[in-house]
Amino acid sequence: MALFKQINSKAKANNNTGFGTNPSSYGGRFVNKDGTANIQKQGASFLSRISWYHVMKVMPTWKFILILFGFYIAFNLFFAMLYYAIGLEYVNGIDVYGVTELEKFGKAYFFSAQTFTTVGYGNMSPEGFATSALAATEAMIGLLYFAIATGLFYGRFSRPKAFIKFSHNAVIAPYQDGSALMIRLAPHKNTNLIDAEARMTLGMSIKESGKMVNKFYSLDMEMTKINALTLSWTLVHPITEDSPLFGFTKEDFETTEGEVIVYLNAFDDIFSNTVATGTSYTFDEILYGAKFNIMYTENEDNTKTLLHLDKINSITKVSLH
Amino acid sequence: MALFKQINSKAKANNNTGFGTNPSSYGGRFVNKDGTANIQKQGASFLSRISWYHVMKVMPTWKFILILFGFYIAFNLFFAMLYYAIGLEYVNGIDVYGVTELEKFGKAYFFSAQTFTTVGYGNMSPEGFATSALAATEAMIGLLYFAIATGLFYGRFSRPKAFIKFSHNAVIAPYQDGSALMIRLAPHKNTNLIDAEARMTLGMSIKESGKMVNKFYSLDMEMTKINALTLSWTLVHPITEDSPLFGFTKEDFETTEGEVIVYLNAFDDIFSNTVATGTSYTFDEILYGAKFNIMYTENEDNTKTLLHLDKINSITKVSLH
Amino acid sequence: MALFKQINSKAKANNNTGFGTNPSSYGGRFVNKDGTANIQKQGASFLSRISWYHVMKVMPTWKFILILFGFYIAFNLFFAMLYYAIGLEYVNGIDVYGVTELEKFGKAYFFSAQTFTTVGYGNMSPEGFATSALAATEAMIGLLYFAIATGLFYGRFSRPKAFIKFSHNAVIAPYQDGSALMIRLAPHKNTNLIDAEARMTLGMSIKESGKMVNKFYSLDMEMTKINALTLSWTLVHPITEDSPLFGFTKEDFETTEGEVIVYLNAFDDIFSNTVATGTSYTFDEILYGAKFNIMYTENEDNTKTLLHLDKINSITKVSLH
Amino acid sequence: MALFKQINSKAKANNNTGFGTNPSSYGGRFVNKDGTANIQKQGASFLSRISWYHVMKVMPTWKFILILFGFYIAFNLFFAMLYYAIGLEYVNGIDVYGVTELEKFGKAYFFSAQTFTTVGYGNMSPEGFATSALAATEAMIGLLYFAIATGLFYGRFSRPKAFIKFSHNAVIAPYQDGSALMIRLAPHKNTNLIDAEARMTLGMSIKESGKMVNKFYSLDMEMTKINALTLSWTLVHPITEDSPLFGFTKEDFETTEGEVIVYLNAFDDIFSNTVATGTSYTFDEILYGAKFNIMYTENEDNTKTLLHLDKINSITKVSLH
Repeated sequence: MALFKQINSKAKANNNTGFGTNPSSYGGRFVNKDGTANIQKQGASFLSRISWYHVMKVMPTWKFILILFGFYIAFNLFFAMLYYAIGLEYVNGIDVYGVTELEKFGKAYFFSAQTFTTVGYGNMSPEGFATSALAATEAMIGLLYFAIATGLFYGRFSRPKAFIKFSHNAVIAPYQDGSALMIRLAPHKNTNLIDAEARMTLGMSIKESGKMVNKFYSLDMEMTKINALTLSWTLVHPITEDSPLFGFTKEDFETTEGEVIVYLNAFDDIFSNTVATGTSYTFDEILYGAKFNIMYTENEDNTKTLLHLDKINSITKVSLH
Repeated sequence: MALFKQINSKAKANNNTGFGTNPSSYGGRFVNKDGTANIQKQGASFLSRISWYHVMKVMPTWKFILILFGFYIAFNLFFAMLYYAIGLEYVNGIDVYGVTELEKFGKAYFFSAQTFTTVGYGNMSPEGFATSALAATEAMIGLLYFAIATGLFYGRFSRPKAFIKFSHNAVIAPYQDGSALMIRLAPHKNTNLIDAEARMTLGMSIKESGKMVNKFYSLDMEMTKINALTLSWTLVHPITEDSPLFGFTKEDFETTEGEVIVYLNAFDDIFSNTVATGTSYTFDEILYGAKFNIMYTENEDNTKTLLHLDKINSITKVSLH
Repeated sequence: MALFKQINSKAKANNNTGFGTNPSSYGGRFVNKDGTANIQKQGASFLSRISWYHVMKVMPTWKFILILFGFYIAFNLFFAMLYYAIGLEYVNGIDVYGVTELEKFGKAYFFSAQTFTTVGYGNMSPEGFATSALAATEAMIGLLYFAIATGLFYGRFSRPKAFIKFSHNAVIAPYQDGSALMIRLAPHKNTNLIDAEARMTLGMSIKESGKMVNKFYSLDMEMTKINALTLSWTLVHPITEDSPLFGFTKEDFETTEGEVIVYLNAFDDIFSNTVATGTSYTFDEILYGAKFNIMYTENEDNTKTLLHLDKINSITKVSLH
Repeated sequence: MALFKQINSKAKANNNTGFGTNPSSYGGRFVNKDGTANIQKQGASFLSRISWYHVMKVMPTWKFILILFGFYIAFNLFFAMLYYAIGLEYVNGIDVYGVTELEKFGKAYFFSAQTFTTVGYGNMSPEGFATSALAATEAMIGLLYFAIATGLFYGRFSRPKAFIKFSHNAVIAPYQDGSALMIRLAPHKNTNLIDAEARMTLGMSIKESGKMVNKFYSLDMEMTKINALTLSWTLVHPITEDSPLFGFTKEDFETTEGEVIVYLNAFDDIFSNTVATGTSYTFDEILYGAKFNIMYTENEDNTKTLLHLDKINSITKVSLH
């Protein structure tokens, strides 16, 4: 099979990617575009598979707020039912005569809300042991609810996130006397990232000793670390004789379902923590014969450098050697 | 004694495990199944031996909630007593005539609860200097109580935990031309673990220079690091000539009270912190002649990989060479 | 051009600073005096360029408090308008006859404030479904607002900051048989910094192969790490034969727009985190022929060492060899 | 001078301790018994020398609580004065006739407290624009106060602390064919410390080239790292030919004002953070001819190991070779 002569014997295999080597057990791309592994867990109960704190941390803000309000309403309905069950004559300030049951329940609901939030105006107040005890419990639960909400809010916005934009495509561009695989990334927020480090891995499915296996290769980079990630950074894998991509054609990439996995970490000065992100490029996201245009310029009075984030995907077609 | 010829002189001893070397001073297994050291501290007062924050962080949720409510009730009883002692005629809204003392105390209790939670409906309110001052103090203490509860809640759910399942047994399986000690682990939650690193140590009690000592050996692994812990990971210690387990029989394991200690750490992307866990396998938890079955498959339309958590202990009996 | 013979061929270039190499694209100094990169991002919407959490963390305290109060007032105005729109006859305790609309709106505003803060005296209270529901929602939003404020306060003061003062000038001082570039720094707060590490980089614009390029050189230091940053620390770059500054004159510095970039990190014992800071010295901030005076003395009874922070810029003019 | 022949020329000097080398500028011991540097900063304003967050984090709990209450009372006094100044006829529920000014002020104080804590019973409530606006402001400030208190509480108990007990004395004990300097430490709480690392440095004042200088020597240790700090750990510096203590007598120690500085760090599993601590031993805290007794035993049924914290200073006198 023609494919086999393409696998560069000098390329160094990377066996510790953590991905499976058995392609018949492995489905789809290795890494999703957002950097997460394309894997689904099952065979255990939902709760034992889910860390709800992780879920609450990564969920979109509008959803998070919705859930907070959802719980707030659910708690109030629940306690309103209990107050109603005990009897609303035990809540001072609720007229129990000449009003519909729904109106009474509505009042119970608002009494519950006033208790849960501890606003306690006092136009309604509990009377008798059962209602008083229930109100005391509800106020406590309300405060614990806000204690938890406080923790979740802090957990959400203190979560170190790497605000990095990756170029949509990887390119095979001319480089020195040959060519190189290049990917561009840029920090897109007011963060201060230092000691950034990147790695690139090539994953593909090839036939070895007569059966298909997933193979992974580390792609050597011209530079794997930079002191400060302030401007854009172009990751460059020179396609030298030692590269698994040496002599590799666009077709080979497709046949082997080649995928370039990129991983980046850096130290964020303000989160004071390491942030990490990644992405992957499947064969159809790799452009042959293209190079990235420079994406920063000096400002008018030459006192500052401007980073143009909208130019991250700006490329020029070039012919390869 | 037959045992001695089994100790492989090429094996590399590990003297810095932190465990004692004196078996007559050392009781039971080294490491518990949950990865903690099997040690108990004494000879110091309870308080100086306990970090209550650690206790509050690791305790089960139901217990934690119970303790919060316990303190809430205790504070209310305490302040109710003080209000009662000052005299309930200083609390507006409490009838002091024609009611039993218990009813009066009950009202004082609910007044306390309304103050502690700052719900303050106003159907009861303080009157006079002493009661007013006490109420002002209680409201302050109440808020500090919820400040502390907020911190504890956040401390609890922000605690980086490694959600890792270890196989119940270690196995001695065929490996290349010989055999290997294998342990399997898998992440079981929606976490993203990267740069995972493991180490295995063998601990045993042997006679050396005529007296019993605890000896520890590092077990070399086929792979000690993986980039991403997304699927299951089988830790493999090949039993080569340099292994302390070379020529070691099931009986030797038992005689020396052999114990394999496993330690794992990884970087959790969402906690943005290193998480660590471990476990240990005593001789009776090691199966000779068994291998782990693969625990992941592709999904139906071949776009995702499924990790079957219920198959972590799935093994097949095999004969060793 | 005379400049070229000055560039020491033995100096080791540092290509991974993360700064651009194209001076015609690059404007102004590389690093600002406060250690941040002199770069501005554009070409993306404001929101996608800003991490508001970072903004809230680094903003001066007075501004932060102002913003909190600003939102408080804005929320109250907003809800007051809604209460007003529904009709103030639905708020018990507000006289709707014989008062001006402004007075009525003022009362609605204070009712809103009492609801938002959950103080809920009860001299005003909601009546009817719409107003009650709005008040229940406002109390909830108020508590979430304080949950967020709590998180921001904690985020602000738990942010690891390196409380380091740098000397205003760098000096070229005599050192052993030659001279050295020296910078002084000192911790100025009650922090305990350990394992401090520094690095110095020289950036300049020079002509190479006929076009201007930005070049960066690592400046070797006499000592790059110290165990504990307790007293002042003078960073010393000996101008040896291998130094890019060897044979470099004050004029060369100016011509090449030379800039010395300093970066420091250390482990702060109380934040329990790595803290990082930096600064830079452009050619006009480098003094030729000056040395730093010692800035610590023993106290009167010789039991403590005093660090005089006001002497950080104290120098003595000296002649160079 | 006899002293000089004692300084072992093979000992390796440690120049990067961060302590000053000029003994006439340096007063007292280098490191205090609690591991902090014996240094005092001056020459800058109090505020610029103090990180109040650090102060609030390390202060004893009783002091912290006292400060919280102190501010609470101060705020209430301040606002009470303002309410009083505006006129208490603008606070509903305060009788302004037939009571003393002090009583009126007392009521204003409690109204303030009810507002600050947002308990707002409603037996007193604001009336008129000025008082209403002031109360709205106070409730806001009160909530921010508790937001800050929440953050400080969390900051305090989440501060990673190394719960390590050091032996009160260092000992010079027999070791192999010679002797060794030994220090013992043990974790004394329910923490799980892993990857512990220690270093020992000897500091002393000696005459060099005719003037006194502070010299520091790294003391090589038999073991500098252990995997898990579960039992006691005896730090051992063998006094070999390369040791700066080789041939050093008790008198030499005293003459040079020798001080052994110990530094320890480890990873705490529950704080999920590195914890660090240290101590120092001046010459009069070093016992010649003594060894530590073992401080752990097995429990009665040989299933657990007991660590006896009260035996950390338990030593036996021995004669040195």
